[in-house]
Parts: sequence; structure tokens; C-alpha cells
Amino acid sequence: MYSFRNDYSEGAHPNVLRALAQTNAAQTCGYGLDPFCLEAAAQIRTLCRAPEAEVHFLTGGTQTNLVTIDALLQPCEAVIAAHTGHISVHEAGAIEATGHKVCAVPSPDGKVSCEMVESVVRSHSSEHMVIPRLVYISDTTETGTVYTKAELTALRRCCDSHGLLLYLDGARLGSALTCSGADVTLPDLASLTDAFSIGGTKNGALFGEALILASPCPRFRWHMKQRGAVLAKGRLLGVQFQALLKEGLYFDLARHANEMAQRLRQGLEALGCPAAWDSPSNQQFVILSNSTIEALKTAGYEFETDHPEGPDRTCIRLVTSWATPPQAVDAFLNSLSALLPIR
Amino acid sequence: MYSFRNDYSEGAHPNVLRALAQTNAAQTCGYGLDPFCLEAAAQIRTLCRAPEAEVHFLTGGTQTNLVTIDALLQPCEAVIAAHTGHISVHEAGAIEATGHKVCAVPSPDGKVSCEMVESVVRSHSSEHMVIPRLVYISDTTETGTVYTKAELTALRRCCDSHGLLLYLDGARLGSALTCSGADVTLPDLASLTDAFSIGGTKNGALFGEALILASPCPRFRWHMKQRGAVLAKGRLLGVQFQALLKEGLYFDLARHANEMAQRLRQGLEALGCPAAWDSPSNQQFVILSNSTIEALKTAGYEFETDHPEGPDRTCIRLVTSWATPPQAVDAFLNSLSALLPIR
Amino acid sequence: MYSFRNDYSEGAHPNVLRALAQTNAAQTCGYGLDPFCLEAAAQIRTLCRAPEAEVHFLTGGTQTNLVTIDALLQPCEAVIAAHTGHISVHEAGAIEATGHKVCAVPSPDGKVSCEMVESVVRSHSSEHMVIPRLVYISDTTETGTVYTKAELTALRRCCDSHGLLLYLDGARLGSALTCSGADVTLPDLASLTDAFSIGGTKNGALFGEALILASPCPRFRWHMKQRGAVLAKGRLLGVQFQALLKEGLYFDLARHANEMAQRLRQGLEALGCPAAWDSPSNQQFVILSNSTIEALKTAGYEFETDHPEGPDRTCIRLVTSWATPPQAVDAFLNSLSALLPIR
Amino acid sequence: MYSFRNDYSEGAHPNVLRALAQTNAAQTCGYGLDPFCLEAAAQIRTLCRAPEAEVHFLTGGTQTNLVTIDALLQPCEAVIAAHTGHISVHEAGAIEATGHKVCAVPSPDGKVSCEMVESVVRSHSSEHMVIPRLVYISDTTETGTVYTKAELTALRRCCDSHGLLLYLDGARLGSALTCSGADVTLPDLASLTDAFSIGGTKNGALFGEALILASPCPRFRWHMKQRGAVLAKGRLLGVQFQALLKEGLYFDLARHANEMAQRLRQGLEALGCPAAWDSPSNQQFVILSNSTIEALKTAGYEFETDHPEGPDRTCIRLVTSWATPPQAVDAFLNSLSALLPIR
Repeated sequence: MYSFRNDYSEGAHPNVLRALAQTNAAQTCGYGLDPFCLEAAAQIRTLCRAPEAEVHFLTGGTQTNLVTIDALLQPCEAVIAAHTGHISVHEAGAIEATGHKVCAVPSPDGKVSCEMVESVVRSHSSEHMVIPRLVYISDTTETGTVYTKAELTALRRCCDSHGLLLYLDGARLGSALTCSGADVTLPDLASLTDAFSIGGTKNGALFGEALILASPCPRFRWHMKQRGAVLAKGRLLGVQFQALLKEGLYFDLARHANEMAQRLRQGLEALGCPAAWDSPSNQQFVILSNSTIEALKTAGYEFETDHPEGPDRTCIRLVTSWATPPQAVDAFLNSLSALLPIR
Repeated sequence: MYSFRNDYSEGAHPNVLRALAQTNAAQTCGYGLDPFCLEAAAQIRTLCRAPEAEVHFLTGGTQTNLVTIDALLQPCEAVIAAHTGHISVHEAGAIEATGHKVCAVPSPDGKVSCEMVESVVRSHSSEHMVIPRLVYISDTTETGTVYTKAELTALRRCCDSHGLLLYLDGARLGSALTCSGADVTLPDLASLTDAFSIGGTKNGALFGEALILASPCPRFRWHMKQRGAVLAKGRLLGVQFQALLKEGLYFDLARHANEMAQRLRQGLEALGCPAAWDSPSNQQFVILSNSTIEALKTAGYEFETDHPEGPDRTCIRLVTSWATPPQAVDAFLNSLSALLPIR
Repeated sequence: MYSFRNDYSEGAHPNVLRALAQTNAAQTCGYGLDPFCLEAAAQIRTLCRAPEAEVHFLTGGTQTNLVTIDALLQPCEAVIAAHTGHISVHEAGAIEATGHKVCAVPSPDGKVSCEMVESVVRSHSSEHMVIPRLVYISDTTETGTVYTKAELTALRRCCDSHGLLLYLDGARLGSALTCSGADVTLPDLASLTDAFSIGGTKNGALFGEALILASPCPRFRWHMKQRGAVLAKGRLLGVQFQALLKEGLYFDLARHANEMAQRLRQGLEALGCPAAWDSPSNQQFVILSNSTIEALKTAGYEFETDHPEGPDRTCIRLVTSWATPPQAVDAFLNSLSALLPIR
Repeated sequence: MYSFRNDYSEGAHPNVLRALAQTNAAQTCGYGLDPFCLEAAAQIRTLCRAPEAEVHFLTGGTQTNLVTIDALLQPCEAVIAAHTGHISVHEAGAIEATGHKVCAVPSPDGKVSCEMVESVVRSHSSEHMVIPRLVYISDTTETGTVYTKAELTALRRCCDSHGLLLYLDGARLGSALTCSGADVTLPDLASLTDAFSIGGTKNGALFGEALILASPCPRFRWHMKQRGAVLAKGRLLGVQFQALLKEGLYFDLARHANEMAQRLRQGLEALGCPAAWDSPSNQQFVILSNSTIEALKTAGYEFETDHPEGPDRTCIRLVTSWATPPQAVDAFLNSLSALLPIR
């Protein structure tokens, strides 16, 4: 009946569609140099309190990661990332295809800590090795966890003391900034990272990621072009981000997704199926028996089942979005309840 | 008053926007594996009479070129292209960034001929040289010219006799297939090329190119992913192409663009400003004095002025689109008429 | 007094130098197509009992690894290697610079096991991930351990069942084939791997690695050329390998290096400094106190000290070579003996 | 009887071999950090009167070109080279394989002029194009011509005014510096270029190119390592260059090669076979009938025959070297004389 497979199962928030329709007939120049993009970029700089920052709009997450990381690195320089990081696992080697090694460090919760960064730095001491230069983090992480301001501040200090850049992949940044306990703001990110993205695709846009570069990088548009990351009708990105940023819609949508996730989590817990680990964000992980999972799928529910937990059980992922209705959550919980053995 | 700068100055045809709105709430899986994409691909196979062909949807032209060419080539293999070819000039070295040389051959009219192909093949005879392996052509070309069926058939034979692949960049394919004198069809392209694209961006879509691979290439989706060319909400591409292909809208839009271009051309000729060369398609080139050009710009017209012709004159490019109203053409001609010296 | 830093601290065995001098005046064609290379390749095919194998000569180890791995892989394909593997650590990201990810697996002894291979294969199941395609092993490994024939046979079967290629980096192959307990032969390697190298640089040559490809790879010379790995006077490689292979000199030199290593090991053990782990080959590892290490260095001995073992002790590496005289080993042991506290 | 195919048909000058033998037993550290390399680098700095220059030793010409050009360029930056340039034609796309476009300009004599450079710069004006950044020249060129000091000075000025780097491939630099009419010195090159190489392979070494970087480039050794261009026994390069630089041997050898070439040229002219164009260096080009060429080959002479001149004649290349005896030249001329029709 409902897919919890991902937060990009639907199209866009109606306001986004409406803005596209309203601006459709206007003629603009291409490639993201149009007034919509310029204004959206200005809004983002204002929201980030970063008047010097450079803002670019790209189409998707992997594209944003590969273009940005390649642009920020020199040859022989490498990335440090959690072994669960999107670039470590789920981008088909996109970073390596630009020539850069990803030094993946095991992480218990999907976050990168100062200790992890330092262990990589320490073990790369000779000119026969790559030069670790950029720390990649995602927020929320791939396991739904969220960085605190203290953690980001510590990472920044660690990066500074080792001459490293800090890049935050914000494909699910809305969820991170609005979840329960969140203490990080856009201005924090603009001052603590060298670059970060604000994901639109997973939070109400048809597509689109805004990239914020703390310090200008004049050749960045060349990098984008060379990787096929300049949209001819770049205006589409500006228009969408303007719609999302208007009156805080972006944050409202993310808050809704988080609320649906917590509703799911609490319902699961009440059914005796506690979350596999603590995620305050819009991805929830729970271990169910394979027979229950099959029954849920037969009932028409969709979700990811990538992580087997022994022969009979699997850790499933349930993702809520800006579009998830509470009824869908409740229906899922009811269906699950009917499937579980009586305790 | 009007921009003839490009054929992607506006948004999308209303039918496209409407289809996006109508399908917006439906949940689908991501990455172009949804029912909309599957059905659009099936429609394209039918239109091409190529039931075995593989169809992929990508976001833009440079992205399509770089992913496809890199996927079709082995290391050390090179592309043959006209010196005016989009990949030779206007993609910021995107092909070379994937490791492949583009052997650019001077072309008088933007087309690649068998003679040009053979001159490159002949001069690459040793293992110290790259191996020419793929012929890149664009149709329409960057100078507005269009291949005949005889020319494409000859190129196919030439490619076959030298073991070369033939790839046609159809960013402006609509215009090529519907212009006056056009004798090429989609089934022709499917049988004469190894791969070709049907451009949506420049003919009524918000964005999107359909790529048709004559023979299946099972790893193609990995290539796309690795280059950041898999759209999370891939459905957007399927929905748009379905809307464009419905009842021949795609061809109607292209025909309109061509008609507007011919109206422009005839008007220019009547004003004593004949086309710089014969283009049957939606790009027209004309040489004007720099003072006239400045006056047109001051009057609010936009167009490209890349090609100086001596110190006082410039060859300008005027592009019409599916959205160009005849009134815009006529207004431009009137403005120009008032600017020209009395003959 | 003596450097145990590496097995390439000296020049070449006198027979190699003599052969270079004797053939110096002869004119030959370039690029490894000369009679010396052709004959050395034929000899290697005979020694490997692999009449169909393709043999190439390259200059050094990193070059051989990067050219071979890149030539054997398609885009999006990745390598599986031990985390200690030379390509994982000590080649400055050379494999990634050709666009391929190295999936490094933790290994307790520097070897890759079937279990490790299968864990990587299992976790790479989607088109959003790289495709593991080649298993890289080194023999001897970077920690001095040596594969048994049973281990290689098991790896071959594992590779076959998963469609993987097996490549063995034989930079120290001489030591592996001649060490105590060795049960692997050149014909074994030719039948169990898809490609392997016979290292000359670390076993008596000035420089040079022979690469044996089980199945012909016609474009391999293009790959070499494109990576700058074709030596103009390629004959130098053929001449050197002919000299090394004559009357088994290659194996005699390796045997000597191994004997010197065992002499060292036994002497260390007798002094109460047992090897840190069991290495039958020409690299020995032993943990000494930092003060002892400093004293040895002051006395003029050289060796690598990359691996701290807590604050006061370090695991040092001692490498013997074809050129190491027994007197150097004994002098080292004597010096150490004088430095150790009386037990 | 003699091969004029190339200037690397023989081994090394006896002094080089002798130096390798004399230093063979010494233990040194690896990778070009040994005393021989350090001293050879110091000598080169002195000869170039460039105390700040960075000197590296690489194995061959293509390797030197690809490592240096890739190290000097940022992504999206491109090289300007003559269409006959070694990197444009004879390196199997090595530069493109590092991701950089080579903008090849037609050149009548193998040299790059300021006009050519400016035509490329002028036509690369937008962010959709590569950024020309480095001018590649070879001296002597691939057609045997030699740059004058005036030409190099003009190129330097042109580069400065456009923010371009100037790199000179000196694979045949010895011949260029010692030919009749030469007015360029090593200090000139050090002050006029950003980087240049002094080729050993084609002038008496077994192998080896010295690269001189006008301004230090601290990461250069990483680039070398990543491309497999660091020789384990790097000392071999230092020892060879020391031997070649001792008492001007390098220049004497080049002078000899040039003298043999002029002897050949004058002999050819006397036989009614004038040089196809004016080359003061060790490569001579002459057009002969195909039947004469076949007869010379049958007689045992070797040379390149890459350039057909119509159906019956071919422009052949004759290369002399430090090792070419005058008798070989005279014998060739006698053989040719006997083959030519009586005039």
C-alpha cells in the first residue's frame, strides 16, 4: 500500500510544481546564470550568513559529490570517509573514476570522528602514499544518525590542525537540521565546513542540490561543465530552490518527514520491535523476521532489505518523506501488528 | 524583446508540465526503473522499429555524450569528430576527462564525411597512436546542417569497413527529422547508427535526452551511475518523453521551430541579409555589421555573436524553438529593417 | 655498516652487467620488439609451460601493477586486495588514478583468502556499486608470507566461481618460489593465475619485471605505451632477463637472499629477539626497543621502522638480497648482541 | 648493414656502462634520493645556472611528458601543441588519458609559433571550453627543426602575456643545442621555459630523461610515484647523467650525431637527392622512389618510411646517433649511389 523505500518516491511539493508552471514561459539565459538561480543563491547566502560563499546548483547527489570532491582535490590527494559513506559504497566508484582514492574507515554509527581522521593521517606519511586532504561526512548519515554541533566543531578543529578540508554531503540535510535534538544551523555549516550541500531531491524538489562553497572557487563551473553537470535550463534549479526556501517550506517538509519517522518508530517500539539503533531522522531501521518481511511485502509495502541479520532475520530500512501521510504510517503499523506473534 | 540565443530559453511545453503534475503523487521506484520510463522506452523502441534496442534516459546533452562515448570505448580508443563538433569544442574537454582523445577533423559544413574518417584511420597505424574507434556526428550539426539518408548510409558503410562505431548526438534531432528536405526517420537511425540520442531539452522538455543503443550494453547503467547521470526521480524523464511522444507532439514542436527559422531566413533575405550558409533547421546564421548588431541588442534582442567576420562585421546565430511565436520573428525583422541602410 | 632497508640497494648481479656490456653495440629495433626480448619471452613461456601466454617486460613494480590492472579491468570494475597490499598502500593511489577502486580487506597475514574475496563479492550486489572483478595478491606478501599451492588453488576456484580474475604481483616472486616450504612453481602460477609478474628489480636486475598474461591481450602494448611504460631501448629488459634465467641464476639469487634472511632470523631468535611473525622469505620483522634501534642506526645499520609497537618499541623490517654477504648478517647480529641487556 | 631507424638502436656510451659497473656494489637508498642523483641534479642546476630549479630523473620520454604535463595542469586545462608534436601523435593518447585535451595546431615545420598559440587562446573564451594553459614544444622537433633563441624568447613573451606555461620536450635536446646555427644554451632554457627535459635515452644513456622545473613543485614526486615513474634503483639515472655530463660528453655525443647527419645530407644532395626540408639536426628527411627504398632495405638498411609522397615515392627518415660511424654513412651513400639511375 505504501513505499517506505526512499524519500524520492513521489514527485515534488505542489508549491515547487506551481513555481515551475508560473515561470515556465519566461525566457532566460541558460546554465544557471539566470535571475532565478542568482536570486536563490543570494537567499542561500543570506540564510547561511555567508555573504562571500559561492553557491552552485546541481542535479543530483552523486553528481554533486563527484564534481565537488574532484574540484577541491589536487591529484594524489585522497578522501577520508566512513565505510558506510555514500561515496564509499553507493556511487559505483564515482570518486575513484575521477582519480582519487577514498580511504574508508570503519565507523560504528556512520559518523566520522576525529580519531578516525587522525588514524588515516598518521598512517599516510610517505610520498609513496596518497595524501589525505578532504574529510567527507554525510548529515544525516546513511544510517540515519545526525552530527551535533560539538562533533562538527571538533571535526573542524581536527581538519584545521591537519590541513584538511571538510565537506558535508547534505542530501538529507533538511532532516538533520530539523530532527529532535538538532543543534546545528545553516550558518554553523557555512562556518564549520569548506563545502556542503543542501539536498532538494529528497526533500520536496523534483531534483536539485545546492552546493555552498565557503571560499570562492572560480573554476568550479568548468568542473561542472566537464562532468556534464551544467543543466541547460538551469533556471529549473533556481525556481525550485526559491519555492522551497519561501517561508521556510524546506524545513517544514523535513520536519514532517521526521515526525512521520518518529511516529513509525514509536509504533514499532509499542509493537515490541524497537529500532535497531537510535535514529532521530527520517530513516528508521528495525530487525524483523524474514517471514514477517515477506508478509509485509505481499501486503504491498516496500522498503529496503539490504542487511541480513543471520539466516532468519533482516534489518530493514523504512524511510519517510515530506509526502508521507500519517495514515500510511498507521496502516503499516496495523498490518505489522496483525503479522506479529501474540506476545 | 525576444531571445534567439538558444532553444532552451523557455521551460517546457504545457503538455509536459501537465503530465508531471498529473503523475506527481504516484509513488514509484527510483533511478529510471519506474513504469513511466519503462513505457517511454517501449514507445521509443516501437517508433524506432528496434525491439532489441536498449533505451536510457539522461539529463542533458554533454552528460549523454560523455557517458555514452566512454561506455562504448575501450582505453586507448579515440573518437573522430568534426572540428565544430560539440564534443570537440563546447564540452570543456568532457571526453578527454574520461581518458579518450577526440581526433578533430576540419569540416566545411559541420558534417563528417567518409573521406574525413578515412584520413584519420589511415594516419593511425601504429601501436604508439590512439585507435580511432567511434565516429561522432551531431544532427542537426552545430552549424545547422542536416545529414541525408545517403550520407548516413555512406558513413555506416565506411564505419563497418573500418570496424568503427557510429554515434549520433541528437540534441537537435527533432529539427533534423522534420526540416524541409529531411529524408531520415527514427528507424533509419536505429539501423544506421550504433547509438543515437533523441534530445528533449531543446524540443519541449524541461530537460532530458533519450539514448538508444542498437545493441544491448548491460553495464550501461553502471557507467551512468559512476558519472552521476542517474536521476533519483528518474520517472521525470519517462513522464516527459511520454508526453512528448504522444500523438507526435515532439515532431510538431520541431516542425514549428523549423518553420519559424525559415520565416526568419526568408525575412532576412528579403532585407538583403541572406543566410551565411544554407541551414534548413532551427539555427540560422547571418552576417551583420557590428553597429547593427549593437542596435539590435539595445532593442532587447538576444543571440550569439561568437564569430567575428573581419573588424566590422560578425556572423550571428539566431535560434528558434518550439516556443517561438511568429510575432517575435516578425518583430525582429521589423526592427532589423529599420536599422539597415536604405538600399 | 650495512643497509637492510630493501632488496634494491645495490646495482645488478655481475652477469647482468656483463650481458648488457656484451650486447651494447648491437643495433636492434626499439620498444621490446627486439630479438633479446623475443627470446627472453620464449624462455619464460617455456619455463612456465605456457606456450600460449603473452609476455611483456616493464620497468618497475608500480608501473606493472597499474598498467596490468587497468588493462584487465573495464570501467566500474574494482580490485579486491589485502589492506596491506602494495597497491592499497604504497603506490600513491596509482590504481585509483586509472579510475578503479581498490576494495581493501583487512588481512591478518598479508594474504587474501577466499572468505575475504567472498565477503567483498557478497556486499557488492547493486548497480550503484562497483563491480569486483580482479583479486590482487602479492607473493611474497608485503609482510613476508608466502602462498601455498593449496591456497592459490582455492583462490583460483573462488575466482572462477565468481567470474573474477586473479593477478599475482611477483615483485618478490624469486623469494616466494625458493623459500623453505615453497611448493609453487612457475607452471603452477601460469595455470592458476590470469596474470602474474616475475620481478627482476628486487632479485639481481638493474630494473625490470616480466609480466605473464595467461590469455593473449592484443591491446596490451597500447596500454603500456599510453602509460609511458614502453622503454625505448626495450632490449635492456630482454638482455637482463636472459642473463637472470640462464642456468637458473634467478633462483640461485633468490635462494641466497632467503638463506641470509633465515640466518638473520635464527641469530635474532638466539639473541632472544624472535621474529614478530613467521616469514620464510627475505623480509624479517622483529620488535626491538627504540633505544636499541637508535644504537643500531648510530652504528650505521639501515632498515625500515614504520611500525611502532607502543611508545617504546618498534617493529623493524630487515630485508636481505641476492647481494647480502653472510658477514653483514653476522656483523649485525654481533652489534645487536652487544646492545641487548644481559639476560 | 646499418639501421638509421632511430637514435636508440644501440646501448649506452662505454663511459655510461663503465660508471654503472663501477658504482654497482655501492648500497644506496632507492627512488632517486641517493647521492648519485643528488649530485647529478646539482650539476644540472649549475650547468643551467638555475640554483632554485628542481631536477627529477625519469625513465623515458612519454613518461616524462605525461607526468610533467599532468603535474603542471589543473583539471579542465589543456595543452597547445603542434599537430606533429610527439604528444599529439605518438604517445597513444597518454595526455588525454590523464584527462587533459591537447589542442593540436597545424604547423608547417613542426614548431609552435606565437600566432598559433594566440589563435588557440582566442578561440577558447567560454566556460564551456577547455582552458589552454601550457604550450608544449619539442626541440629538436619531430621534423628535425630547431628553435632559435629569438623564437623561444618570443614564445616566452607570448606565454607570459596569456598566463601560459611553456614546456620543452628535450628528448633530442643534445642535437638541438649543438647543431649548426644553434644559439640556445641550457641557461637560456632554464630562464625561458617553466619546465624542460634533457634527454639521455637518445644521446648515449641506456635510458633516462632529466626534468628541470624552473619553480619548485613539491608534489612532483607524488605525481611520479602515482604514474609508476619512480625507479626503485633510481641511482641508475644519477650515475648515467653524471657520466654523460662529465667533461661535456653529452654535448660531444650530440655533436657527433649532428655531424653524421650533415655528412649524410651532403652526400644525399651530391647524389641529387636533396633533403626534403632543412634540418640542421640528427634527423634527415629525403624523398626517394619506392623501388630505391625497397632496394636499400634489401641491402640491409633500416629507416622509417611513414610518409608516402604520392603513389611511387616516399619521404624517408634517416636518424644518426652518438654511435653512428662515418663508415656507415658512407656505405649507405655508396649503396644508394649504385641504385640511382645515371643522371
